Amino acid sequence: MDIGFIGLGNMGGPMALNLLKAGHNLTVYDLSANAVAPVTDAGATAVNSVAEVAAADPAIIITMLPASSHVKAVYLDRDGLLARVRPRVLLIDASTIDPITAREVAGAAGAQGNAMLDAPVSGGTGGAVAGTLTFMVGGEGEDFERARPVLEAMGKKAIHCGPSGNGQVAKVSNNMLLAISMIGVAEAMSLGVGLGMDPKVLAEVLNTSTGRCWSSDTYNPFPGVQENVPASRGYTGGFGTDLMVKDLGLATEAARHIRQPVVLGALAQQLYQGFSAQGNGALDFSAIIRNYRKEQE
Amino acid sequence: MDIGFIGLGNMGGPMALNLLKAGHNLTVYDLSANAVAPVTDAGATAVNSVAEVAAADPAIIITMLPASSHVKAVYLDRDGLLARVRPRVLLIDASTIDPITAREVAGAAGAQGNAMLDAPVSGGTGGAVAGTLTFMVGGEGEDFERARPVLEAMGKKAIHCGPSGNGQVAKVSNNMLLAISMIGVAEAMSLGVGLGMDPKVLAEVLNTSTGRCWSSDTYNPFPGVQENVPASRGYTGGFGTDLMVKDLGLATEAARHIRQPVVLGALAQQLYQGFSAQGNGALDFSAIIRNYRKEQE
Amino acid sequence: MDIGFIGLGNMGGPMALNLLKAGHNLTVYDLSANAVAPVTDAGATAVNSVAEVAAADPAIIITMLPASSHVKAVYLDRDGLLARVRPRVLLIDASTIDPITAREVAGAAGAQGNAMLDAPVSGGTGGAVAGTLTFMVGGEGEDFERARPVLEAMGKKAIHCGPSGNGQVAKVSNNMLLAISMIGVAEAMSLGVGLGMDPKVLAEVLNTSTGRCWSSDTYNPFPGVQENVPASRGYTGGFGTDLMVKDLGLATEAARHIRQPVVLGALAQQLYQGFSAQGNGALDFSAIIRNYRKEQE
Amino acid sequence: MDIGFIGLGNMGGPMALNLLKAGHNLTVYDLSANAVAPVTDAGATAVNSVAEVAAADPAIIITMLPASSHVKAVYLDRDGLLARVRPRVLLIDASTIDPITAREVAGAAGAQGNAMLDAPVSGGTGGAVAGTLTFMVGGEGEDFERARPVLEAMGKKAIHCGPSGNGQVAKVSNNMLLAISMIGVAEAMSLGVGLGMDPKVLAEVLNTSTGRCWSSDTYNPFPGVQENVPASRGYTGGFGTDLMVKDLGLATEAARHIRQPVVLGALAQQLYQGFSAQGNGALDFSAIIRNYRKEQE
Repeated sequence: MDIGFIGLGNMGGPMALNLLKAGHNLTVYDLSANAVAPVTDAGATAVNSVAEVAAADPAIIITMLPASSHVKAVYLDRDGLLARVRPRVLLIDASTIDPITAREVAGAAGAQGNAMLDAPVSGGTGGAVAGTLTFMVGGEGEDFERARPVLEAMGKKAIHCGPSGNGQVAKVSNNMLLAISMIGVAEAMSLGVGLGMDPKVLAEVLNTSTGRCWSSDTYNPFPGVQENVPASRGYTGGFGTDLMVKDLGLATEAARHIRQPVVLGALAQQLYQGFSAQGNGALDFSAIIRNYRKEQE
Repeated sequence: MDIGFIGLGNMGGPMALNLLKAGHNLTVYDLSANAVAPVTDAGATAVNSVAEVAAADPAIIITMLPASSHVKAVYLDRDGLLARVRPRVLLIDASTIDPITAREVAGAAGAQGNAMLDAPVSGGTGGAVAGTLTFMVGGEGEDFERARPVLEAMGKKAIHCGPSGNGQVAKVSNNMLLAISMIGVAEAMSLGVGLGMDPKVLAEVLNTSTGRCWSSDTYNPFPGVQENVPASRGYTGGFGTDLMVKDLGLATEAARHIRQPVVLGALAQQLYQGFSAQGNGALDFSAIIRNYRKEQE
Repeated sequence: MDIGFIGLGNMGGPMALNLLKAGHNLTVYDLSANAVAPVTDAGATAVNSVAEVAAADPAIIITMLPASSHVKAVYLDRDGLLARVRPRVLLIDASTIDPITAREVAGAAGAQGNAMLDAPVSGGTGGAVAGTLTFMVGGEGEDFERARPVLEAMGKKAIHCGPSGNGQVAKVSNNMLLAISMIGVAEAMSLGVGLGMDPKVLAEVLNTSTGRCWSSDTYNPFPGVQENVPASRGYTGGFGTDLMVKDLGLATEAARHIRQPVVLGALAQQLYQGFSAQGNGALDFSAIIRNYRKEQE
Repeated sequence: MDIGFIGLGNMGGPMALNLLKAGHNLTVYDLSANAVAPVTDAGATAVNSVAEVAAADPAIIITMLPASSHVKAVYLDRDGLLARVRPRVLLIDASTIDPITAREVAGAAGAQGNAMLDAPVSGGTGGAVAGTLTFMVGGEGEDFERARPVLEAMGKKAIHCGPSGNGQVAKVSNNMLLAISMIGVAEAMSLGVGLGMDPKVLAEVLNTSTGRCWSSDTYNPFPGVQENVPASRGYTGGFGTDLMVKDLGLATEAARHIRQPVVLGALAQQLYQGFSAQGNGALDFSAIIRNYRKEQE
């Protein structure tokens, strides 16, 4: 299939490579020549602007961008995608942005006859490389079915979350819960160990009890409890604190928009914001446990 | 085996019945004649004081009491267990109390030659009746092994959590995490549904993603998402809000004792305390979602 | 002096009337004819667009608008103020908006030779009518001096807070602290009265001790403690909960922008957001004490 | 007047010296000989036990002790004050303890014919030395009047807060509000300065606006804003963080006792607890601002 791809960063680059591997033809664009090189080396055709991607007339165009402002610019600018794309081309935005902007842009696309899906991912750069991302997708069911084979070339799962914007809704809801759970596990582990329990025994109890969660059984933040998690390698790799700060910002902003209180969510945002301000923005988000205990080394 | 049992309330009563079913001989005591009746009907011998339980010379004495003050009274009073019990009798306190008191009482018992285990349970009154409780046990390993067959007559699992007090530590750590997760799920579900998602689809996304936890996949607080949970029957049954308030009080008090911050834990305590103050103390603790959304009926 | 005035709502209307009273000539514009009528009745000249206000060539133009989006539109639109205003006209935006937008718009004005001040007010609609507002002003010192007599025709005080945007910074910082203090007083009064103190005696102690604050000594939220405050008239009048929700949104958003944690500020935002979601948005913000105690009536 | 005084620590020592200066006869007791020496040097008579203080038959006995457990021991032990004191002796406990214990002990005293006042102080060690403490007093009005001249020899003000325990209630309510306000000021100052304001200008705005409070206008935590406050001398002197942690513990425990939510109060407790756990327990409590910004030196 002929596919356009805009945004070849840490996530977009490997995603594009997986599409090439699956045999698709790619027309790609990124501001950074360094980002473009590995993808053209693997067989993609590079062009010099968003408008030229549209001009190459692909069946599907995928965008993977850092934030709402970039998405708005790429889609809505005078020389942006919507101004240049032909009718019936399917647009897929895999960026993580706020649901309100996602719906706005999709509405503009739909008004001129272009179906659009919001399809944010989870799985991180590791999942992007390995092709094991999960896509949470908002949009019409038939468009989702049309996109599915392409999404599955980049990930292991695509979930249809309902109409436009719901991919973003699912992502911010999940990640807010993740942040809360992670801090909850950090507090429970710190409390139990501080009161005299062995961390591995405590983790085992939690994991077989009602406190069980992904942050305790798959990604435990306490050093030495699990192998192959950031906590066992100095909180390197994984899902960066600053990305969590960004997602919590999207969650609380969306909550504010609909006047929905999210008390623990807002507190989690502040705790991560403070942790980042202390210079820890690049550490994995499970490092938040350092707020709660000194590491004995 | 000859077993003494003190405290035959909503939890202790059914636990004692399960011991009788397993063929043990029971000498029991409770202040309330109503609580004693079903247990003597089933074959237990009732006596009139704590001291008489000790005088019956059982091999093991089990206590199941509401709070630290009762445990102190039953064990440490002038006519209490420690004053009357013979050496080598194994003492098991299944009450949920603070770890510091648990260690104090166990220390006093040990000083006079009585091994003591703290063995708080999870599983609620349903688990007590069905014999499917989980025991979290603190104390010496050999005493744990001696107690294990008796505990397994009342529950499906007994976990040795380390030295004295650690059963209580495991319980308060787990339940603090549970309270945090439950509120987290309540907020994430309310946010996602408020932003336009179907609650069942959102739950499915959370349950297969990094937000997954017992409160989302086994005990979802959103009405209509799961069958056979309190949320689907008006938040009746289950684990009462006031019990959660009690456990959060134990957790934050223990944290204060060791100067351990538990930020989300303390906030969860206040949210439950406020919810109880509004008259909801008897509802299942998953009803906290009512703080976040109006029920559409 | 010839003054243009855009935005004649609950605040802007009475402010314009006070300018007329002080003898200034006013050219005014508002979308709503109802809002314009009382001001033209008092002697102002109404025009039909923002551009026409600029065309009337006043020495100073004042805007009083609900939110950032309106400010951006009025100043930056194709037919907006900046496109039409002559050089050297002094622009004063009295709206409460985020500091980042305020600086952006002032920067655009400055680039074309128009000095601009941000001058949000405190004092509410009562202060607007009585001419007792306080203006917190950001911009150059000489521009502030030029504006001062005009501001003092509408208020009792104008404080120069530093360069552009600092008026907004001062306002959001102050109002975030106000929200925190008010909830703090609500909690302290509820706790003390719940434990047996007379509310008036408790207020007196707080007001002569280290807990003293504007929310305790001038605007006490406990019913019956002070006369002539919203708490003594069912929380009507005063500063509405929804306005506080708006200001807390501006504060936490500005904090997020610079990665500054504001833990109590964010929690205050959620508490007010939840209080508003329960249908209390129109009550004075001191009504938050209803979250903490049932009123005995 | 003949006065007994038990507890001659950092607070009690200087308080006793001020009583001597005012011409009273003192019989004193403290476990530590070092604490006793300066008071006997100034003319007091030292004895060797609590019982001997009672035996000296003073008209009033004052106690100044670290915590509830000490108060219970001194008053209720077999050889304690209540067992030995004659009827009609007025008992004054100036310790800061929880209101529930204060009422319990006063009840026991009253039952045997000894009036008792709870009279916790504010003003710190500086106020104790200078004789400028404020006493918040719970108990009968006539007993308060009897105590007043003695209290005023040690302080500049004594406030009658109502029946027994209300002195403690006033103190914990005030100090909880103080903790909340201080953190609120720390956040507002950090936010405003982070967004570009001069700290002195910002403080001036807050102090003349609705954010005004003791923590902003008398004890500002931002370095360099005020002279002669802990913030201008590296947070030495003043009211220690660990004392605030203790008072917040009393407040939240009392709240829990009556099921009163104190959301910001509990969060303030955790923030101070975490700050203390990081090794800052001896710093003045205004140092909490270090959680929010790096000091630029």
